[in-house]
Amino acid sequence: MTTHADCIFCRIARGEIPSRKVYEDDELMAFHDIQPSAPVHFLVIPKVHVENLYDADLQHQQVLGRMMGMIGTLAREQGLDDGFRVVVNTGRVGRQEVYHLHLHVLGGPDPLGSGMPRRQ
Amino acid sequence: MTTHADCIFCRIARGEIPSRKVYEDDELMAFHDIQPSAPVHFLVIPKVHVENLYDADLQHQQVLGRMMGMIGTLAREQGLDDGFRVVVNTGRVGRQEVYHLHLHVLGGPDPLGSGMPRRQ
Repeated sequence: MTTHADCIFCRIARGEIPSRKVYEDDELMAFHDIQPSAPVHFLVIPKVHVENLYDADLQHQQVLGRMMGMIGTLAREQGLDDGFRVVVNTGRVGRQEVYHLHLHVLGGPDPLGSGMPRRQ
Repeated sequence: MTTHADCIFCRIARGEIPSRKVYEDDELMAFHDIQPSAPVHFLVIPKVHVENLYDADLQHQQVLGRMMGMIGTLAREQGLDDGFRVVVNTGRVGRQEVYHLHLHVLGGPDPLGSGMPRRQ
């Protein structure tokens, strides 16, 4: 599996940087965002280094499918029983901050307070 | 494949309601949002009816992986060379409007004008 020495999410995946873990297995990991934008805000990443959705190809589809298929269960385990939002920022226009593919999962008891627009 | 008679996205997938198509194959479809929230705004849906990420399970992982793995290519084909955002609204708190799983892809030449917050 390709990982990058200096990538912060690769370092979290290798356990070199601590994180508040939500879930982990051989190929993916979920952990709480250190700068939450909502009452509950965690990230789901593949352990393999892939920059973003531009660079995702056939070899990444299986893990992407597992990530998406698992989010509902992880969200419920974090108390998000009544809905949540998934956001994936890609590139400059998408305001991507860390160039290791990650899915934001955002939710909480007070949706109006969590900065969620009516429609996006 | 399970589809629902009255679901608007199932009807689009069956060709009963016209759409501005971005892509289509046997198991998924992409088309422009009729109420765009950004200069470029299209949706990617599985043709099989699944309400949202709470209901996605093992049988949906393959198509979810294909959807995610294909978005970068579809985005480039729509002129989104410099980034975009993917949003998946789930349930009441996530402000889901149509209860057939769909991924919003949002981007365009003027990110500040397209209502993208700095961080979400």
